Amino acid sequence: MAALTFDSALYAGLLWDPETSQLLGDGAEISAMIRVEKALASVQGRLGIIPAEDARLLTAALDQVFLDAGALGEGMKRDGVAAPALVMELRAQINEPFANWLHWGATSQDIADLALVLRLKQILMLFRDRLDGLIGMLAELTREHRQSVALARTRSQQAAPTLFGLKAANWLQPLLRHRERIEAFLPRLGVVQFGGATGTLSALGTEGIAVMDALAEELDLERATPWHTARDRIEECAALMTMIATSLGRMGADFVLLAQSEIGEIGFAGAGGSSTLPQKQNPVVAETLVALGRFAATQIGAIHQAAIHVNERDGAAWTLEWLALPPLVAATGSALLRAGEALEALRVDPARMLANLEATRGLVLAEAASFALSAHLPRGDAQRLVKDAVAAVLKGERHLFDEIAVRTEAPIDWNALRAPLAYLSTAQALIDRVLAEADAMLGAR
Amino acid sequence: MAALTFDSALYAGLLWDPETSQLLGDGAEISAMIRVEKALASVQGRLGIIPAEDARLLTAALDQVFLDAGALGEGMKRDGVAAPALVMELRAQINEPFANWLHWGATSQDIADLALVLRLKQILMLFRDRLDGLIGMLAELTREHRQSVALARTRSQQAAPTLFGLKAANWLQPLLRHRERIEAFLPRLGVVQFGGATGTLSALGTEGIAVMDALAEELDLERATPWHTARDRIEECAALMTMIATSLGRMGADFVLLAQSEIGEIGFAGAGGSSTLPQKQNPVVAETLVALGRFAATQIGAIHQAAIHVNERDGAAWTLEWLALPPLVAATGSALLRAGEALEALRVDPARMLANLEATRGLVLAEAASFALSAHLPRGDAQRLVKDAVAAVLKGERHLFDEIAVRTEAPIDWNALRAPLAYLSTAQALIDRVLAEADAMLGAR
Amino acid sequence: MAALTFDSALYAGLLWDPETSQLLGDGAEISAMIRVEKALASVQGRLGIIPAEDARLLTAALDQVFLDAGALGEGMKRDGVAAPALVMELRAQINEPFANWLHWGATSQDIADLALVLRLKQILMLFRDRLDGLIGMLAELTREHRQSVALARTRSQQAAPTLFGLKAANWLQPLLRHRERIEAFLPRLGVVQFGGATGTLSALGTEGIAVMDALAEELDLERATPWHTARDRIEECAALMTMIATSLGRMGADFVLLAQSEIGEIGFAGAGGSSTLPQKQNPVVAETLVALGRFAATQIGAIHQAAIHVNERDGAAWTLEWLALPPLVAATGSALLRAGEALEALRVDPARMLANLEATRGLVLAEAASFALSAHLPRGDAQRLVKDAVAAVLKGERHLFDEIAVRTEAPIDWNALRAPLAYLSTAQALIDRVLAEADAMLGAR
Amino acid sequence: MAALTFDSALYAGLLWDPETSQLLGDGAEISAMIRVEKALASVQGRLGIIPAEDARLLTAALDQVFLDAGALGEGMKRDGVAAPALVMELRAQINEPFANWLHWGATSQDIADLALVLRLKQILMLFRDRLDGLIGMLAELTREHRQSVALARTRSQQAAPTLFGLKAANWLQPLLRHRERIEAFLPRLGVVQFGGATGTLSALGTEGIAVMDALAEELDLERATPWHTARDRIEECAALMTMIATSLGRMGADFVLLAQSEIGEIGFAGAGGSSTLPQKQNPVVAETLVALGRFAATQIGAIHQAAIHVNERDGAAWTLEWLALPPLVAATGSALLRAGEALEALRVDPARMLANLEATRGLVLAEAASFALSAHLPRGDAQRLVKDAVAAVLKGERHLFDEIAVRTEAPIDWNALRAPLAYLSTAQALIDRVLAEADAMLGAR
Repeated sequence: MAALTFDSALYAGLLWDPETSQLLGDGAEISAMIRVEKALASVQGRLGIIPAEDARLLTAALDQVFLDAGALGEGMKRDGVAAPALVMELRAQINEPFANWLHWGATSQDIADLALVLRLKQILMLFRDRLDGLIGMLAELTREHRQSVALARTRSQQAAPTLFGLKAANWLQPLLRHRERIEAFLPRLGVVQFGGATGTLSALGTEGIAVMDALAEELDLERATPWHTARDRIEECAALMTMIATSLGRMGADFVLLAQSEIGEIGFAGAGGSSTLPQKQNPVVAETLVALGRFAATQIGAIHQAAIHVNERDGAAWTLEWLALPPLVAATGSALLRAGEALEALRVDPARMLANLEATRGLVLAEAASFALSAHLPRGDAQRLVKDAVAAVLKGERHLFDEIAVRTEAPIDWNALRAPLAYLSTAQALIDRVLAEADAMLGAR
Repeated sequence: MAALTFDSALYAGLLWDPETSQLLGDGAEISAMIRVEKALASVQGRLGIIPAEDARLLTAALDQVFLDAGALGEGMKRDGVAAPALVMELRAQINEPFANWLHWGATSQDIADLALVLRLKQILMLFRDRLDGLIGMLAELTREHRQSVALARTRSQQAAPTLFGLKAANWLQPLLRHRERIEAFLPRLGVVQFGGATGTLSALGTEGIAVMDALAEELDLERATPWHTARDRIEECAALMTMIATSLGRMGADFVLLAQSEIGEIGFAGAGGSSTLPQKQNPVVAETLVALGRFAATQIGAIHQAAIHVNERDGAAWTLEWLALPPLVAATGSALLRAGEALEALRVDPARMLANLEATRGLVLAEAASFALSAHLPRGDAQRLVKDAVAAVLKGERHLFDEIAVRTEAPIDWNALRAPLAYLSTAQALIDRVLAEADAMLGAR
Repeated sequence: MAALTFDSALYAGLLWDPETSQLLGDGAEISAMIRVEKALASVQGRLGIIPAEDARLLTAALDQVFLDAGALGEGMKRDGVAAPALVMELRAQINEPFANWLHWGATSQDIADLALVLRLKQILMLFRDRLDGLIGMLAELTREHRQSVALARTRSQQAAPTLFGLKAANWLQPLLRHRERIEAFLPRLGVVQFGGATGTLSALGTEGIAVMDALAEELDLERATPWHTARDRIEECAALMTMIATSLGRMGADFVLLAQSEIGEIGFAGAGGSSTLPQKQNPVVAETLVALGRFAATQIGAIHQAAIHVNERDGAAWTLEWLALPPLVAATGSALLRAGEALEALRVDPARMLANLEATRGLVLAEAASFALSAHLPRGDAQRLVKDAVAAVLKGERHLFDEIAVRTEAPIDWNALRAPLAYLSTAQALIDRVLAEADAMLGAR
Repeated sequence: MAALTFDSALYAGLLWDPETSQLLGDGAEISAMIRVEKALASVQGRLGIIPAEDARLLTAALDQVFLDAGALGEGMKRDGVAAPALVMELRAQINEPFANWLHWGATSQDIADLALVLRLKQILMLFRDRLDGLIGMLAELTREHRQSVALARTRSQQAAPTLFGLKAANWLQPLLRHRERIEAFLPRLGVVQFGGATGTLSALGTEGIAVMDALAEELDLERATPWHTARDRIEECAALMTMIATSLGRMGADFVLLAQSEIGEIGFAGAGGSSTLPQKQNPVVAETLVALGRFAATQIGAIHQAAIHVNERDGAAWTLEWLALPPLVAATGSALLRAGEALEALRVDPARMLANLEATRGLVLAEAASFALSAHLPRGDAQRLVKDAVAAVLKGERHLFDEIAVRTEAPIDWNALRAPLAYLSTAQALIDRVLAEADAMLGAR
């Protein structure tokens, strides 16, 4: 346990995500706020709202300032938001009359929300790239195991043959949709926030909307009406991150199950040991994926609670958003990194898969037998016959098809049925469908 | 407290949503499952997978059956899913050999998920219509109060003048986005689920994909690859519903605050009384909106947890989805109804708004004064002057502008500044922007 | 999916808990409210606050009334709480002047909270009895398998021998603590709530506290100060229920893992089938336990949110409590029933456990070997030697002890070490510690 | 937004809690683990399990080591837990044969859980002391305002007179219970964890239980059976912290409402300003309390999810616990500090309270009037009369008692009734009840 686990050096081996941490950090937040103030001055100079020369001097001066987060701590305590202290500190550093134009007509929330949007956009683009990387890795894994026969397990029980490639395709398919979701969402997220003290833009007289729209352009964002209190875009962003984290958590949960000693169909290079048990190889990275998914699925609740944001600004709801968004973003970022590490380290054992399948003595081919028999017997009779044979297999030592063969003379080529790949042509076609989508997506980059 | 609050007759007055309840009910679920089985038989008859005549007889017979939920209870206990008992019961009722073709090549989850998708689509379309209704009501409210001067409050403090119409536009703006989200999401939600026992479609030989695609068409759904274990569409649906509920919860929270005795800017016709306090008018419907929003923001966590769904089917995760989705859907449906009731009953009191504003003796015009002075004094001097005047107002009885006038000879028309509508032209333009979007959306229906 | 899953006939087989549902139902709530009103009249008659004869007539009349939940729906909508309509309806039914004394000096929340406390007490006592039942069953299971050698698995990997009885003791141990927690909590929960309209009891002049204390006694509750807005007891009750549900969810999760086809150490009589796979036995009841645990772990969040309850009464927070408490209570009640069913149906297979252990060819005895060798070699050397031998086992076919024996001449009786029960004397002692606690608890009833 | 908000220098002004951060930090965790290893060696030396002299040398050496968290990062990644790397690093630093006895018979989880328990105990004792501080401050506030008449507000509406001291007593009363809960819980939390690799203690032969019990004594903990997988104590600890945070969140929410401009009954010295609105005083610290309460109410869900911990050790569930516990603890610690700061800065304005009450022109005395009239009229008639008078007050300018007086000749001393303190004797008695409890608790320290 560390102050906060994502920031702990002790837990860094499990959780560390340097790029996301950097984007969530104090430095990035202060830089983004300064970038917003600079864009505002620049736009207002251009529109003649503040003197053009002062705007030029001010933006130039803003390129030179350096602010330490610690300097804003007292202001944050007093004001509940960093911008007032930031503005005061910048004015003090610049110490010229033109610095009075800084922050002209803006409110703290304009600055804070824009700094958030700019960073969330960067973060989402980072996550998009990481998703692309995972999609590539999973597509390769899928392709590689397009013919690797494996056991499907439903409700914890061995069910029927499948392909390991189809398992991989099923880890892949939601990522393709998340990738599309990010693409569709980025312009919804990347909108300007500029409303002045109470969202009316009244301090700027009739020029408010012109400034707002120009600021959007300057910051490469879409136009919008002020949304100080309408936090649905933040909710959507958080929901999307949670969905990414749970999709990866599901992959991790499958990894843990497939890596169980008794199943052993996968393993991880460099898997963790135990302080006392030399024979063990713990699937640590897979477990971490599960934990991150479940953690994200918890944080999201606070973001939705924070969307109940009253009046023209709600300090309590807003602070709650500040508390819950970073752990969620950090968890998703970490999950994306960990998923890459897990896939890198993944060792698949097709021979063990086949051995596990054969050890069922045909029980997982019961459905296949039942369908094959249905061509010759009424379906009910076929099912009853298979059920009896299954019961005999469970008590004895014989293969299911041998038990069936003694019970019916239906002209079925039981040997052909023993090769599961024969039934799995449709599974291969399903794999190909997913791979085609993945290729189209990666090709379209 | 009732067995479950949404189903309680005692709590019906607060929570009842008959249409959503009906769509969530056992009857609708059973009907949808039968509709899916019928579509499957029909498609398989057409494709020659089962005898065409048998398919005809079977679909005709399925139109006649009646199933009581109670009849499936034992099967649900045994199987953990209703479909096996449903199929058995349907075969027993039909009691003809062609009934053996029922459910051919399908797995229980195909039926259950398709029945879910069909109902969620209906529910989302219902919610879309309700959103349209709310958008219309809020657009009207916005328009009506385009000139109603009111107080903006930030961090619980009176801040500056705004328009009540802008408050209404801010309740409206996220609903416009939710409306678009539903439209964009409906085709992502409305996809076929058909994978057979383990998602490989192997029971249908080489015909699996053809059946799957035809089934999509028959049920008016999009094509897809089997997604038994990839629950991201369910997560997205649930996240969207949560966002709707929290947006309405935020409106409710504002209603509660504006209806406070000391503020009294709104009220509700027929508002609730108290068992002992005759003078009270409780904003019950607004409180209910807040409660429903916070309740939804809790349920969503379980849906994201349920997305960690292992192997080729995970009974525990799936059951969790069944437990958490209905309360969330019920809460969102109820919130949409309650929001309509609240807007119907809403009584806005522009005179009280003005009185509240005037009672501030110009304090909320401090920003306006400061900007007006900045045309004549350095900004820092202007702010200091206003700050002093504010302090004097707080101690004395005078209006802010009178306090300022004695401190400066700057040639400002203080009387003109006293009419807040003068500064609010941009606020009106913002209102118009939101109304234009609403009109475009409602017109496009 | 049903309106609400716990109330659905379709899902009853999975979830039904008739006793808890009854205690959560409208009928029980109305009865409890009437019981409270009657106790109040009785106490006030005795204290001379209302005429003794009127009190007698009123309490007698209250024994005769019958109220239908539907009759209170309109009032609930108007008032946001049932009590005003209940009082009106009771007065109308009784239709005598003495009925005016009904509800004298009380507020709706007094009635609602007392009705809640009375039912929660009953529910907790029901859950306590169910816990006792489970403790008995688990104690028996533990005792029965005090010598059943099984594999311990850590981080999904086979680790070392243990006893199945110790697994059972570990499912049992938190239930013993929950049992104690309920006992300690019952008097904290079972307190009077009586504060009048705003918690000051001012309507009753100087008699308020006397009435409050007498009401406590009449209803067999503890004394307290009014706690309309201090919901910590409700939070504590909900947290306790969540802990029960997650402890049972953990047992269910273990059941699912142990019932996996590849492990097969347990099974369930009458386990669920599959619509197409005749060989399968799905551990449905175990999966349901997991789902209920995770569902409860979600609901609790809303109860804690609802504890942020403002002013002297907060309609929104209170309604949120009403929404979230019943699903949580229903989930815990259902989990307690399901756990009993699961234990009833549980089939343990000690032979398979032993076979699984032997199939490891001594790998899970690596720790034992390492400790045995440490008596003869430096610990580091011993660990290295075992590590090498483990590597050889994994590549070859030999037993670990055979691989070790060729690497060292340390005088160890390897044959004796092969009998895992030999190391498990402490595990048996741990079992005995837990059983002694269980016996003490059950004996103390 | 910062990497994690509690650790951010930028947000430190809002959130910083140095003592809790220190106890949650890497350094404290490493120290606690070393302390546990040292206690283990010491106990095993005393019991003759390891050579007494080696034990002496080892514990002496452990006093000299220094470990940097960074050195354990790689091991954490590999092993998923810090202890193996810690042990390796300690052995390397000590670099003597006796260091091989380090960690004898223990498993990583023994060390990690004991290090957690030791720190959670310290944290709970810190929180207990902070609670005592808050109890003292709130008791003083209560006492000071034992006669300060204020408005009670129910469901956001002015309801009836109360005392500000009773409001304070209601913030105080749950803290008294939390204080008791901590006292009762400390011995349940402070238990030994020692089970060896799989909870059987088998590596220590027949000495396992003796070591476990001695280790408990050495670390000043209670005896227990190994609870690697039974996380109910952690759940209970987290639930208790959440309850503390929500009780303080509720106080913060009341503060925000009472500090609204239109109510203005309280304020905070040094309250936050606005970047553009000079007249504003934002109740930042109160808003932060609400945010922390709602944040804690979210985190708790993950702790309960993590209690579903499978087999003999569940890496995923355990990692989830590590992720969610620190933010919850940090939020509670911060809330306790913030609550103290808020009470320190609190300015109560009894004159404004009285003015607000008088501005209601007797409406909030309607209940009092109704009860006074009931002594002379049938209750129904009295209520009707008051209702009519209330309606007249709302339309006109007169005081309620004047409106009543013209409607009845009942011999009531209306002037006496105008002094609300007259009805509030019971409220004072309720205050005294709470204060007596607080005094008893603080005196008993």
